[in-house]
Amino acid sequence: MEEVPEGLKQRGDGSKKSLDFEPLVVLEFSVNTKQEAIEWVISKLQASSESNGADLCVTAMVMQHNQGDSETVLFIGGSTDRLLLGAEMMDLMKVYKDGNHREFTINDITNFRGGEDADNFLTMAEKQMIIFRELQNIRATENDENVPGYEFIKLYTGRTIVKKLLSQDLIKNLFPIHDNEFLKKMGVEWYKQPFAQQPIDKIQHYFGQKIALYFAFLGFYTLALIPPAVIGLLYWLTSWQNLYREAIFAVFNLVWATIFLEAWKRYCAELAFKWGSVDLVSSRFEEPRANYHGRMGKNPVTGKPEPVFPKSQRVLRFYGVTVPVLCLCLTAAFYAMLGYFWFQAIVDKWYLEDKGWLNLLNTFMPTVVYAIVIAILNAIYRKIATILNEFENHRLQTSYDNHMIMKLILFEFINCFISLFYVAFYLQDMKLLKSHLAALLITTQIVGQIQESIIPFLLHSRRAKKLDKAMKKFDELQKVEFYNGEISEDMQKQSSVESTMDVYEGTLNDYLEMFLQFGYVFLFSSVFPLAAVWALLNNVTEIRSDAFKMCRVFQRPFAESASNIGAWQAAFEVISVMAVMTNCALIGMNPEIQKLLPTDITPVNMVIIFVIVEHILLAVKIGIAYFIPDVPKWVDVELARIAYQSKLALQKEQIERAAVTKKNKMTTI
Amino acid sequence: MEEVPEGLKQRGDGSKKSLDFEPLVVLEFSVNTKQEAIEWVISKLQASSESNGADLCVTAMVMQHNQGDSETVLFIGGSTDRLLLGAEMMDLMKVYKDGNHREFTINDITNFRGGEDADNFLTMAEKQMIIFRELQNIRATENDENVPGYEFIKLYTGRTIVKKLLSQDLIKNLFPIHDNEFLKKMGVEWYKQPFAQQPIDKIQHYFGQKIALYFAFLGFYTLALIPPAVIGLLYWLTSWQNLYREAIFAVFNLVWATIFLEAWKRYCAELAFKWGSVDLVSSRFEEPRANYHGRMGKNPVTGKPEPVFPKSQRVLRFYGVTVPVLCLCLTAAFYAMLGYFWFQAIVDKWYLEDKGWLNLLNTFMPTVVYAIVIAILNAIYRKIATILNEFENHRLQTSYDNHMIMKLILFEFINCFISLFYVAFYLQDMKLLKSHLAALLITTQIVGQIQESIIPFLLHSRRAKKLDKAMKKFDELQKVEFYNGEISEDMQKQSSVESTMDVYEGTLNDYLEMFLQFGYVFLFSSVFPLAAVWALLNNVTEIRSDAFKMCRVFQRPFAESASNIGAWQAAFEVISVMAVMTNCALIGMNPEIQKLLPTDITPVNMVIIFVIVEHILLAVKIGIAYFIPDVPKWVDVELARIAYQSKLALQKEQIERAAVTKKNKMTTI
Repeated sequence: MEEVPEGLKQRGDGSKKSLDFEPLVVLEFSVNTKQEAIEWVISKLQASSESNGADLCVTAMVMQHNQGDSETVLFIGGSTDRLLLGAEMMDLMKVYKDGNHREFTINDITNFRGGEDADNFLTMAEKQMIIFRELQNIRATENDENVPGYEFIKLYTGRTIVKKLLSQDLIKNLFPIHDNEFLKKMGVEWYKQPFAQQPIDKIQHYFGQKIALYFAFLGFYTLALIPPAVIGLLYWLTSWQNLYREAIFAVFNLVWATIFLEAWKRYCAELAFKWGSVDLVSSRFEEPRANYHGRMGKNPVTGKPEPVFPKSQRVLRFYGVTVPVLCLCLTAAFYAMLGYFWFQAIVDKWYLEDKGWLNLLNTFMPTVVYAIVIAILNAIYRKIATILNEFENHRLQTSYDNHMIMKLILFEFINCFISLFYVAFYLQDMKLLKSHLAALLITTQIVGQIQESIIPFLLHSRRAKKLDKAMKKFDELQKVEFYNGEISEDMQKQSSVESTMDVYEGTLNDYLEMFLQFGYVFLFSSVFPLAAVWALLNNVTEIRSDAFKMCRVFQRPFAESASNIGAWQAAFEVISVMAVMTNCALIGMNPEIQKLLPTDITPVNMVIIFVIVEHILLAVKIGIAYFIPDVPKWVDVELARIAYQSKLALQKEQIERAAVTKKNKMTTI
Repeated sequence: MEEVPEGLKQRGDGSKKSLDFEPLVVLEFSVNTKQEAIEWVISKLQASSESNGADLCVTAMVMQHNQGDSETVLFIGGSTDRLLLGAEMMDLMKVYKDGNHREFTINDITNFRGGEDADNFLTMAEKQMIIFRELQNIRATENDENVPGYEFIKLYTGRTIVKKLLSQDLIKNLFPIHDNEFLKKMGVEWYKQPFAQQPIDKIQHYFGQKIALYFAFLGFYTLALIPPAVIGLLYWLTSWQNLYREAIFAVFNLVWATIFLEAWKRYCAELAFKWGSVDLVSSRFEEPRANYHGRMGKNPVTGKPEPVFPKSQRVLRFYGVTVPVLCLCLTAAFYAMLGYFWFQAIVDKWYLEDKGWLNLLNTFMPTVVYAIVIAILNAIYRKIATILNEFENHRLQTSYDNHMIMKLILFEFINCFISLFYVAFYLQDMKLLKSHLAALLITTQIVGQIQESIIPFLLHSRRAKKLDKAMKKFDELQKVEFYNGEISEDMQKQSSVESTMDVYEGTLNDYLEMFLQFGYVFLFSSVFPLAAVWALLNNVTEIRSDAFKMCRVFQRPFAESASNIGAWQAAFEVISVMAVMTNCALIGMNPEIQKLLPTDITPVNMVIIFVIVEHILLAVKIGIAYFIPDVPKWVDVELARIAYQSKLALQKEQIERAAVTKKNKMTTI
């Protein structure tokens, strides 16, 4: 075990040479991963593109521990030329000399801003993103039947290798390293000032567009909560009683939610334009996601080789497998909810019959049991949903994400909202609805705050211990050897520290939290106007605690580009439409309001009146959405200008090519 | 009066020279239009573009009648080069050698299909469209204060002259001439075979995309009426009685209407792609409509000079003038409807009190009076709507059309549907609803058929007389003189014949008819299932009579390009959404259905049940619309491929330009 790996020796040229590239990404193998496998991975990383490699620079640090364990950490980087080539391959958008974003091409680099200094032309996040993409693009060839040294880990031609190794736990950690200097500067503006504007552009620069858009949305949504919160608070403080009070608040909220969602779309379009991530044309020539697999064919649009997976098969998988499985899960969640109310009714009856302390305690039982059941179901469902989503084999990352979002939303909707619908429209118990809603909202937020702010804070000591342990392990090292150049001690320490950090699971859960909160605030706002106040309080701290976590608690995530918040926009819009229906129904069911109607009104007229009111509100909503353009005018003009230039260029190029062909013909004659 | 116009003499070079251009468009001045005005127009037509002229070829035919009247007819054409330049200026789409449509450019002509033969490269309809556009682009310069000879006809710099002359009746007629050979061939396929497929591509070739899309839509919609008509007929024949009968039919219709509208969108996208009229990019660099006016400025996207009219002013005009005036008109129509029902109630009461024949006759009075009032209101409203729409000064033809459509739809909706809503939901008299609906639908169709098929047929004799008169006038001529070449006798006759033909008013009325019919069939289908049968019968003849009129009754209209049916798509979709609401309400109000519900059901539960059913149906509708893509996949791929090529070309062009700049710099050093 203490021998130096043969392959590394051959490749490495002494351990005292300093690095000739900037290490950007850390890949940590599990303890005692077999040497053949490590060597095989390194060869794949270093091999040229022609031989299906990633053509990257790698240095390996092999640590032999006293206990005899050996650990290998790879530091990965790339030559400037390699990274620029990667940027071109992935159609990275960079700022052109005319101030617009254009797809980067190496030949044209001098015309891009900052293109004179090729080494620093790409940002650190971009370089890391490029390396990540290249890592994912290492696919098994026909010669790779299994991972060397692990016969049971089978490989399939065309599938990505890194993902396989991660899922088989041969790779323990794969993360881009943090830029502590930048983090410190950004932190001052971001989480150290609770009421300052977030440094969205810096966040985009460091974490990429997807995460920056989440924080932009969170900030925007929090601002938008202020008016409903103020009104809700006024209502509560003045206890201003009025028959129309609920109705006024509900209508205000519905209009406000629509304006908010439309205004966000505009703001988002502006950000996307500023960051160069706005989609000009069809996504048909977007590159497929790394894990997309299928028979190798070529893209019908670009003609580039890529895996082909027939749509019919995806549809078959979706309707044949996903839909039935989801239905089963949703039904289970629904029955759990019914069981909860049935159980609650029983214990309530017990308590009424015998008001002993045991029975009082028992009345809390169903809630506890339900919470546990939901947590278990949730954990199972997420696993299932991920497997199903992977199985559907979506071509684009965006459609993969959107399908995942939809799956989670469906389930959370059943978990969180169906019980409210049940109370409101089946039991028709407004008092229970109010208390149930308040309980759900407030407990969700408190639990969330504990999970997100207090636990990380408490865990700080645990992390410190973990870190200590990591450092001690360092000291216990029998020997550390480097291959392909030596890593500085600072970098060694930094990578050890960051490898103990938590992994950021993506924006999914963060959005989901906001989505549920939005539902609680707007779906039943006529019953519980104070909801917006609670939500606002929560979000003000949420922004800063999320920011802190991003900078200090999590490993740096790989940047991802995004031009909008994807399926979340639709999800929020669906809630805002449902809110019209629920609030109309709630107000219609309000006995106070019903008293206002003539006493001789027939049920038929009741139906007609409420249907009309609801549809007028829906029409107002659609009208607002229609009259607020999704894209600000200046962005629209800029996009049109770019499209126009591209059109002119195409024409010019055609004419020139035609002229050349003609000339050639002439000379032949 | 019998003198030969001086200016013409100078310009004309003898009257016996034959034409050196193909006459394509006929411009007929009113009798005794002053010579100065005619000369001025001719000079504008002939002047070069630099001197704000149209640079077209014109020959004038001056007819002196015995009574001393003089009439001038201009025959307008253009040189091949001039027409090709016009095609390039208007971004005409033509088929490239690779089979795709591209914007035509003269320099690249050899790479377009048919480009070897420049004279016949453009179709007749295209040439006429180009000439029409150039005519409209003749704008008053700063020197043109009024029309020469007519001091009271003031001109404003930047406004089109031809429109002014048309509105002042100095120009009596302006039309492109028919191609009788092509018409004959097309007629055989089109209106002489009642059940054959329409020759849509030929129609597009001859009449342009806008009219072709109307006929494609009419055919598609007629086919789509078959299933509801068959079911309606079965219901009527078998008198199959079932509690759910109406509900089943209504649900089928709602789903079917959605599928039809979605399928049409796909078919329409396919046609637009085939004809090269599909919009690839923003309309911001589309050319403004000819009558768009404003301070001269430049387009923010293309940089080309064009009139600029601030959006704020348009919004002000819309909300400050259009909206109040429209509201007034709609209110008037609404009160007319109320008056009708009030009047009807009175005469019905009279008849009940005294069943005399006079009172029986009186019961028909309100309907007659209402019909007359509506006809008058309608005529006034159309004038107002046109003026308002012109006043709003829309930049693009499409947005002008769409606003006009919306204005007309609003009014017709009040006229035609509000009375049905009133009967259904205010009077709640299902029997009256059915008879009222049947009466409206059937009388509308019969009146329409008479107007469209029988009157034109009867008028044929009147037209023959008119023609005779025109011919006689020809014989009475004292002398005919030509300037700039002689017109063949055939052409003289053809232009005289066509100048007596009716002017086609555009597709607006034709679509409106279909729109109202669609409303009658689907809005209340659960009450009157036979509606679809009537509609189907009507449309089968409608297609052929419309086709006949297009070919034989009307002057040839100028071709217009279009990529979809514009606001009509939205209008039909709105009706299909409203149909969900009305049908749910109708079924809910059905006493048969109400008997099915538990007798102890509360009004509150009634509300809930019907709201739920309606929303489920709406959700199904949205689901169907979502799952049927608007554009067929092959069109999508083709469009993406074109966009991709354009992107690559842009990159290439940039790089080449950069290389040239570099080289130049090097040589300077």
